[in-house]
Amino acid sequence: MLGVNQYGKAETHLVRVVRDGDVHELRDLLVSVALSGNLDDVHLRGDNSAVLATDTQKNTVYAFAKEHGVGTPEEFALLLARHFLDGAITRARVQVVEVGWARLGDHAFVQSSREQRVATVIASGADAWFVSGVSELVLLKTTDSEFHGFPRDRYTTLTETTDRVLATAVSARWRHDGSASFEDARGALLDTFAAHHSLSLQQTLYAMGSALLSACGSVHEVRLSMPNKHHFVVDLSPFGLENPNEVFHADDRPYGLIEGAVVRDGAPDPGPVWDPYPLV
Amino acid sequence: MLGVNQYGKAETHLVRVVRDGDVHELRDLLVSVALSGNLDDVHLRGDNSAVLATDTQKNTVYAFAKEHGVGTPEEFALLLARHFLDGAITRARVQVVEVGWARLGDHAFVQSSREQRVATVIASGADAWFVSGVSELVLLKTTDSEFHGFPRDRYTTLTETTDRVLATAVSARWRHDGSASFEDARGALLDTFAAHHSLSLQQTLYAMGSALLSACGSVHEVRLSMPNKHHFVVDLSPFGLENPNEVFHADDRPYGLIEGAVVRDGAPDPGPVWDPYPLV
Amino acid sequence: MLGVNQYGKAETHLVRVVRDGDVHELRDLLVSVALSGNLDDVHLRGDNSAVLATDTQKNTVYAFAKEHGVGTPEEFALLLARHFLDGAITRARVQVVEVGWARLGDHAFVQSSREQRVATVIASGADAWFVSGVSELVLLKTTDSEFHGFPRDRYTTLTETTDRVLATAVSARWRHDGSASFEDARGALLDTFAAHHSLSLQQTLYAMGSALLSACGSVHEVRLSMPNKHHFVVDLSPFGLENPNEVFHADDRPYGLIEGAVVRDGAPDPGPVWDPYPLV
Amino acid sequence: MLGVNQYGKAETHLVRVVRDGDVHELRDLLVSVALSGNLDDVHLRGDNSAVLATDTQKNTVYAFAKEHGVGTPEEFALLLARHFLDGAITRARVQVVEVGWARLGDHAFVQSSREQRVATVIASGADAWFVSGVSELVLLKTTDSEFHGFPRDRYTTLTETTDRVLATAVSARWRHDGSASFEDARGALLDTFAAHHSLSLQQTLYAMGSALLSACGSVHEVRLSMPNKHHFVVDLSPFGLENPNEVFHADDRPYGLIEGAVVRDGAPDPGPVWDPYPLV
Repeated sequence: MLGVNQYGKAETHLVRVVRDGDVHELRDLLVSVALSGNLDDVHLRGDNSAVLATDTQKNTVYAFAKEHGVGTPEEFALLLARHFLDGAITRARVQVVEVGWARLGDHAFVQSSREQRVATVIASGADAWFVSGVSELVLLKTTDSEFHGFPRDRYTTLTETTDRVLATAVSARWRHDGSASFEDARGALLDTFAAHHSLSLQQTLYAMGSALLSACGSVHEVRLSMPNKHHFVVDLSPFGLENPNEVFHADDRPYGLIEGAVVRDGAPDPGPVWDPYPLV
Repeated sequence: MLGVNQYGKAETHLVRVVRDGDVHELRDLLVSVALSGNLDDVHLRGDNSAVLATDTQKNTVYAFAKEHGVGTPEEFALLLARHFLDGAITRARVQVVEVGWARLGDHAFVQSSREQRVATVIASGADAWFVSGVSELVLLKTTDSEFHGFPRDRYTTLTETTDRVLATAVSARWRHDGSASFEDARGALLDTFAAHHSLSLQQTLYAMGSALLSACGSVHEVRLSMPNKHHFVVDLSPFGLENPNEVFHADDRPYGLIEGAVVRDGAPDPGPVWDPYPLV
Repeated sequence: MLGVNQYGKAETHLVRVVRDGDVHELRDLLVSVALSGNLDDVHLRGDNSAVLATDTQKNTVYAFAKEHGVGTPEEFALLLARHFLDGAITRARVQVVEVGWARLGDHAFVQSSREQRVATVIASGADAWFVSGVSELVLLKTTDSEFHGFPRDRYTTLTETTDRVLATAVSARWRHDGSASFEDARGALLDTFAAHHSLSLQQTLYAMGSALLSACGSVHEVRLSMPNKHHFVVDLSPFGLENPNEVFHADDRPYGLIEGAVVRDGAPDPGPVWDPYPLV
Repeated sequence: MLGVNQYGKAETHLVRVVRDGDVHELRDLLVSVALSGNLDDVHLRGDNSAVLATDTQKNTVYAFAKEHGVGTPEEFALLLARHFLDGAITRARVQVVEVGWARLGDHAFVQSSREQRVATVIASGADAWFVSGVSELVLLKTTDSEFHGFPRDRYTTLTETTDRVLATAVSARWRHDGSASFEDARGALLDTFAAHHSLSLQQTLYAMGSALLSACGSVHEVRLSMPNKHHFVVDLSPFGLENPNEVFHADDRPYGLIEGAVVRDGAPDPGPVWDPYPLV
């Protein structure tokens, strides 16, 4: 029996230039489409009559960028998602991942960051769900972070600390009614990370999520995934040197991974927002 | 309000050597732990008294590899997951990703493949759920693949074909009662891919999933994620050459992405299997 | 017979915090060491008496960061390289790759870019050679780039153009006497890319290199490697749309790769600068 | 003044199917071209009259794959390199990187390994130079590796060992007259790694290179680059457990990097083989 399924074109790399006058605008987007609906025929019999080709989806992304412009990532995703609802296709999920460029001149740019702005819109019938977010927002604080009071069992060797480096690469996603300000949301994450005195990464995560909810009244829930990118104090005592949190080894693996959600009281049901197609 | 959350140590890279006699055995595993439970105190107040440190989790992985050996990935994941259920921790998810090495001699090895064997076990109370799988199983067939009969709209330019290259990197996950043979499951995927005459990648995916259910009676459901790694026939006509499906450009992006599940009739409820912590 | 050889510890990931007062400074460096000299004994007989362990090299990197501070990447590389010259070791090459962080507060930071600052110093006897550079400096201009007048043979299908997107990820290395200003050098690259009207990427590369020589009197030579990251104008005519250089497909592979050097007249001999251990 | 330079199309991903009868053959190649010669005009004035477009180079790769077939990687690289020698182009370097596929059936395949076979041919006038090699040949031995007798300075903390895990990812390149057997060369590397009792990675490297020279009479020199992928014995004593080289942490960074060449006595001059365009 056919279970949950979806298909589409992933990672269409669209660059859109707006050339009104000498000062050009530049947008750099990865667009991924996932469609689902009444697709038994193609799975069971190879009958493609309901299968809008992924090549057509790609063409549509490019054509819409010309016909309608890109707007915000959320607007572009919604426009595309609504378009793909047709016939057998009863649900369309469109994700837009945008990277920023800084201006060097009227028509020259330098890629400013590896940080990504993410927008996902799911459309079904007349409904639409909005998720906005960031990925690869790499943050570090050199102090104001403690970790102690954890349980000690037979396998515990970690020393308690009242001062450590805290580093992470934040992925955040917030579901909202489509009106949340991206700048306000991102600003709340950054400001809280910088100002928060941390007793655990979980506490910092929760504070960041709560601040985002406070800053953006239309956000129902924010989910955060924050790896603990360990920075180990190097033991310099064999060399007759003290190391009062000045010299660190930044380790790659393993890493802690802290994931959690903050939900507004009375938030509406998330609908299909958090269950795209999880491969655990 | 705190929503869904989990935390743990990710990607502990354990290499286990068994040295019984001159002929050594080698196992190469990435182990990731994710724990959840009554963790309000740490999120809201930074109280770590219920937070088993991720460093301790790492130590436990190494110590268990010595004390209990590794066994199958599923056995090792179950052992660890059960261990972490304690006090505030009411659900433990442990994932083991193993890569294979081929033997060169009694104690020398060459890494045979980038293919990964994956096992995830979730334990909660007396219950346990098992998901086994593969990732990066890269397959290609040079013929026996068609794609036609798809709808044509204003944005459709794709030509219909009765003979194309079909290439993919299979990720598959099957949930079962813990007794499914990995070799039988993987074999069913490979044999079906090789033998199936494909009218669409969806049809091939469904056939592969169905074959796996047939081969493994204890599997309840299999989920597959199969990118369509496009191989485009190069147009050699400008050079006065024909190209009857002999010379291809293997493209990187965008790619089709086909995801789907095959579920056995009467399969039990999946429980927490498919909802770890999805960041859409 | 033993040919050219070197060995050392690669990619020691050092994070150095300077905590003078409340406002902390943060430095994030990858340090790679490569030593060579009279090393026949270890290669031919496994005699390690001349082999400073790579673990010791790593320790030295961390200890020096504490004892001497980091300074500029060139200063830190020189200090380390000089230290490693001892006994059998007659040449030391130290490379430092630094990534930047932007300040969020007194002791909080966000990683500002994936761009890398690179410094390589080679020390031998009393001599030292300096190479500074950047990697992953990603640039794009939306116009002021042409490409035409190239030869046409049997295999040429490319259309000539007087207006295209030009995008690249610059890697540049300049050898100098140790006194060149990194900011001046980088600024010359950026300014020239932005202002130059390009008839070919080779011409742009040469102009950027020449500008760097003009801006930095102590630079003898600059080498540039600039992939041509193709942005193809999408053909929207099947959809009844014009596309006057507004909608592009950013392709991954293949890519053009343009590499070239600009040398100051009368530049001194490069010595060992450009021949580390090339594996073609 | 223009210094060393080259340009070309990099990483054209060619898949070539041979369909003689029902049993198909599959070849999977990345082809990179780098041309040099009298190219002052394009660098100084943007005059492209001598610049064979990289797009044309790509077309040529595809067309030659049809017209001439692929043959060995060395044969295909030579054919292309010779072709590109024309007019201003006085030196052509063509590199082919091939990955292997194992057969599942008459026309179905599974990618067998991430190991890469590499062939580079440089043509200039009537001359040709051949370099063959492997990359990502990942090897590990669980014993027969020692490391002791190294000097101890102020920064040395490493313990001497007479039994450790030795793991590496071999990159090897051997220059020869075009007639060396790839299978013999690779076999010599594998057999020696497996059989050699190692006192240092340098000694193992030299033994592998020497064995390759012995096995392949037409090889003049072999260069090897072998990272020491550290496997650290986990200290299990805090948990009351011994760990006689059974449980290891496979670390990512930093890593040792051992590079060295073995040259046959009386080997001819390497010519341009080892100096493509090194960016140190």
